[in-house]
Amino acid sequence: MSSLNEGLRLLPTGYLFSEVRSRVRRRVQEGADVIDLTVGDIAYPLPEYVVGAMSSAVLEMCDNVRFRGYPPDFGYYFLRQAIAKRYAPLGASISEDDVYVGCGGKSDAYALLDLFGEVNAYVVDPSYPVYADASTIKGLNVIRVEAGEENGFLPPPPPIDAPSVIWLCSPSNPTGEAYGSAQLKEWVDVARGSGSVILFDAAYSAFAEGDSAGTIYCVEGAEECAVELNSFSKSAGFTGVRCSWVVMPASLRFGGERLSPCYRRLLTTSFNGVPYFVQRGAEAALSTQGAEEYLRVIRIYKDNARRLKYFFEGRGVRCFGGISAPYVWVKCPLGLSSSATVEMLLDEVGVACTPGAGFGRCGEGYFRISGFCTEQAAREAIDRLGRIF
Amino acid sequence: MSSLNEGLRLLPTGYLFSEVRSRVRRRVQEGADVIDLTVGDIAYPLPEYVVGAMSSAVLEMCDNVRFRGYPPDFGYYFLRQAIAKRYAPLGASISEDDVYVGCGGKSDAYALLDLFGEVNAYVVDPSYPVYADASTIKGLNVIRVEAGEENGFLPPPPPIDAPSVIWLCSPSNPTGEAYGSAQLKEWVDVARGSGSVILFDAAYSAFAEGDSAGTIYCVEGAEECAVELNSFSKSAGFTGVRCSWVVMPASLRFGGERLSPCYRRLLTTSFNGVPYFVQRGAEAALSTQGAEEYLRVIRIYKDNARRLKYFFEGRGVRCFGGISAPYVWVKCPLGLSSSATVEMLLDEVGVACTPGAGFGRCGEGYFRISGFCTEQAAREAIDRLGRIF
Repeated sequence: MSSLNEGLRLLPTGYLFSEVRSRVRRRVQEGADVIDLTVGDIAYPLPEYVVGAMSSAVLEMCDNVRFRGYPPDFGYYFLRQAIAKRYAPLGASISEDDVYVGCGGKSDAYALLDLFGEVNAYVVDPSYPVYADASTIKGLNVIRVEAGEENGFLPPPPPIDAPSVIWLCSPSNPTGEAYGSAQLKEWVDVARGSGSVILFDAAYSAFAEGDSAGTIYCVEGAEECAVELNSFSKSAGFTGVRCSWVVMPASLRFGGERLSPCYRRLLTTSFNGVPYFVQRGAEAALSTQGAEEYLRVIRIYKDNARRLKYFFEGRGVRCFGGISAPYVWVKCPLGLSSSATVEMLLDEVGVACTPGAGFGRCGEGYFRISGFCTEQAAREAIDRLGRIF
Repeated sequence: MSSLNEGLRLLPTGYLFSEVRSRVRRRVQEGADVIDLTVGDIAYPLPEYVVGAMSSAVLEMCDNVRFRGYPPDFGYYFLRQAIAKRYAPLGASISEDDVYVGCGGKSDAYALLDLFGEVNAYVVDPSYPVYADASTIKGLNVIRVEAGEENGFLPPPPPIDAPSVIWLCSPSNPTGEAYGSAQLKEWVDVARGSGSVILFDAAYSAFAEGDSAGTIYCVEGAEECAVELNSFSKSAGFTGVRCSWVVMPASLRFGGERLSPCYRRLLTTSFNGVPYFVQRGAEAALSTQGAEEYLRVIRIYKDNARRLKYFFEGRGVRCFGGISAPYVWVKCPLGLSSSATVEMLLDEVGVACTPGAGFGRCGEGYFRISGFCTEQAAREAIDRLGRIF
């Protein structure tokens, strides 16, 4: 047996988005004029109101009385409370004691897995690669739940008969499709029936529309079996600011055991919290003024996605998402593989997208195009794509 | 077998410092006048120069051109470069490509362990509880290396015959004692001979004096077997700002295999980096002006520790540390246990210390007292302790 972590060896060499980013960077360095629609990064600055709150809080750090040392273990009370309150209009009741502030959705997702032994981890295929990669590193046994056109990329739960980890992301990265409450109820029932836990990634909840559930806690029984992950990256443009949260209800059980005491022990041993001024920024982002200021940006990203979607549909290209999420999931033309398509789009018209196969085997034959760009970039990308599709 | 992580069950219920902090907080809420010398947190604000750098960088986030999204995977180049340069005056040559910026020493320590399979982890007893706790959670087999008065709390390496993880912290938390280069060379030789890796926690390097090694890379051969962890928490007062770094030389091997490609894969899957403005603050803290401004604060902490040490020595109480580290490690009086002593000090004179047993079995019979306090608090604590010792 190797002395190195066996799980690490099982992974593909590079992490998807690092690879994609380097490839785009190389092309740009070679002089190519590239519109980068690969990643979910911000294209507009943060609202002044939010930056103002952070800036004042930073200045407190050199004040004799107001400077701050180690943050409280699970986040400042003011932020945990603001996050908890956010759930009421979504139809859920969350206690601030069940909110844990983190430095990013990826880190939270990764850290949560240390709670579990060598159980099964059900991962929808295609999905955000961290779920499967991190589960593999942590020694869980990954079981793919196939998504495809036959289930609208929103697969129903498989039968599960032992306490397991279930990764769900809705609105979904990469397909942009979103479960409604009734569909989520099926997953909650299967989780409760098997003593499993759902790790529900709601990172794109700010984009949810219509019947899409903005939180899993609007589903009856979810507080017994579901952990929700969310972050300020997509909802408030915090990709460079780094703040996220996990909701783990005290009533939640996994295989009959309460999970929150274990999670608290894990967090205090592995993490020293998020800077005070970042938490003040996050609080401002949740305030009425902060949220309203950023809504204008979210609307642009949504319009971009919708415009891309309508473009592809108008050309008779099969695609998904683009309404409740900033991503459009597009079928590759002419039976090309996803990486060949992405290469072709980059080479021929300088539009960078992410190959679907990077999100799992079932992503082969599709690519993801992101609405996280300026309005101008989206229009220009559509012009360019018009030369191909 | 349980579906929960077995390692988590093996831990004591609460993380040491969270427990200690809650106890002190309870006493204060009950109206007690407590001088808190338990934790290594800051007692003075940050230098204006550093806060100014952070504040300007925060304001860039609402600028149309200068706003920043996701940070680069392993840290901004300007900071990695500034960190690498810091090693030259310490007698070591480090490449910026081998520097990885993190959000705290605790998180870095915890994350590094995912590199390894079920190998032995050698942990000096007593030491910072995260080494043993995190190793246990990650399924490594913890082997205690006993430190005590017979080896001046700086134990030599045990014989090691298979690739293992070796945790070292020097200057040491909690004992305040520091290895010299010659002693570290013995550890490096044992590590190289067995294909092991040393995880060297240099968090207190800013306090090192005389022969104490400020970095393990001043020791020949360390670049083949040692990872160094360091942070801005103790050296620049960043406990509330959150920034740290890991040095993992490209030449480092574990059981014959290069570790850095694995670490890069791990990081990109588990972490999205440190805020831009925090990295600008860290850069400022490493600059001549930032370092000079903070040196005044470090001198106060050092003076506090020295004063506490001399107080105990003057009363004929055996103690360690206090010169190359801000901690004094004190023998309990009258054969009392460490927790009974700490209770007694808190009850009778309102001075809060940390029980030695919290750092490992060999810590029983000692307590740690911290110089991270104002000059006034240290003087007052000594007055109060004078009523007991």
